Amino acid sequence: MCATCGCDDHHHHASTETITLEERVLAKNDLLADLIRGRLAERGIHAVNLMSSPGSGKTTLLERTIRDLAGARPVAVVEGDQETPLDADRIRRTGCTVVQVNTGAGCHLDAAMMSGALDELNPAPGSLLFVENVGNLICPALFDLGEGGKVVIISVTEGTDKPLKYPYMFAAADLVLVNKIDLLPYVDFDLDACRRHVAAVNPGAPVLPLSATRGDNVSSWYEWLS
Amino acid sequence: MCATCGCDDHHHHASTETITLEERVLAKNDLLADLIRGRLAERGIHAVNLMSSPGSGKTTLLERTIRDLAGARPVAVVEGDQETPLDADRIRRTGCTVVQVNTGAGCHLDAAMMSGALDELNPAPGSLLFVENVGNLICPALFDLGEGGKVVIISVTEGTDKPLKYPYMFAAADLVLVNKIDLLPYVDFDLDACRRHVAAVNPGAPVLPLSATRGDNVSSWYEWLS
Repeated sequence: MCATCGCDDHHHHASTETITLEERVLAKNDLLADLIRGRLAERGIHAVNLMSSPGSGKTTLLERTIRDLAGARPVAVVEGDQETPLDADRIRRTGCTVVQVNTGAGCHLDAAMMSGALDELNPAPGSLLFVENVGNLICPALFDLGEGGKVVIISVTEGTDKPLKYPYMFAAADLVLVNKIDLLPYVDFDLDACRRHVAAVNPGAPVLPLSATRGDNVSSWYEWLS
Repeated sequence: MCATCGCDDHHHHASTETITLEERVLAKNDLLADLIRGRLAERGIHAVNLMSSPGSGKTTLLERTIRDLAGARPVAVVEGDQETPLDADRIRRTGCTVVQVNTGAGCHLDAAMMSGALDELNPAPGSLLFVENVGNLICPALFDLGEGGKVVIISVTEGTDKPLKYPYMFAAADLVLVNKIDLLPYVDFDLDACRRHVAAVNPGAPVLPLSATRGDNVSSWYEWLS
């Protein structure tokens, strides 16, 4: 892993010291993530880590999901962004409990941030807990947050080839959502080819197309969640 | 800066050892970038570093730009992606010289990769050299490649708030392109608000709306390049 980016690619870094330090950072993260996983299990909380490029519709999907699932079970949200409380403000307007984590120049949430957010959020036993990660199709894939499932979102405006070009993220996914299918008539996106590309890097991962703004096929997403 | 992500945010990392190592990595990158800048200047090569989220249209813009500028001056391209030669293949079909750099799990190009790519590419004196960075609105902002200008692309499908939520990237930009304006009728995007958000984090940066697929306003982009 690279000292500055979290990559596993050593061809441009010769230093053993660097590699050892980075292994320590990830090992420490994994240890803390396991503690979080135990803490969540004890309280019957199911945590879902949402990851995607910036602007693929994570917050819009959460707004609709929270409204549609209202009353079914308690929902809480951890919002990750480099700066601004904008997404937490949007989620709060749905009536949901939310904590914003700003990472500054950072490119992902890590287990320490997740632990701090949980202390502040204190979700009710039996909650569904969504974590909206920082918009980034690369770095968040490496950091276990103690979640029960990783969901990767791609929107049809981003192009069919993304699973092949960013395979680490798609390989980490328990579910791939293809969002903004309401825009399919206006963009060059091949859903069948996208499914094949996801299968090439992650054969077991289900792929669900939907539209968070218009509501197409969100029932399949709710089924997966339950 | 964080050992695993390149962030400047230390609230979750106490180790002085970590910070020192990361400072060394960036300092080494900057030194090499200055050498590259000198090498390019000697040969009259102007290098432009294109950065954006995945799927904002960098490759499509390059395909059109190379075709439209054919004959004006020699053009060469360095393509960055985690995996696959897909983008280099697209660029090669325009008749342009191109080198693909695959970063593996890495999240950005660095000066060492740029230096290696230049050795292989050997652009003609007087060339216009495009670098298409890895699709990532965060990490590439930190790494100087010895380029003459940084261009950040956002597409209208990504949402108006991106400059505020990813301020480090927009603060680094010499030019902001707002791409996919052909999709404006179908999405909720406020161009004036986006301009204000860019100005809030980078008061001097020009903002050019365009459509790489349809060709709207690409002449302004060519003017900026010349």
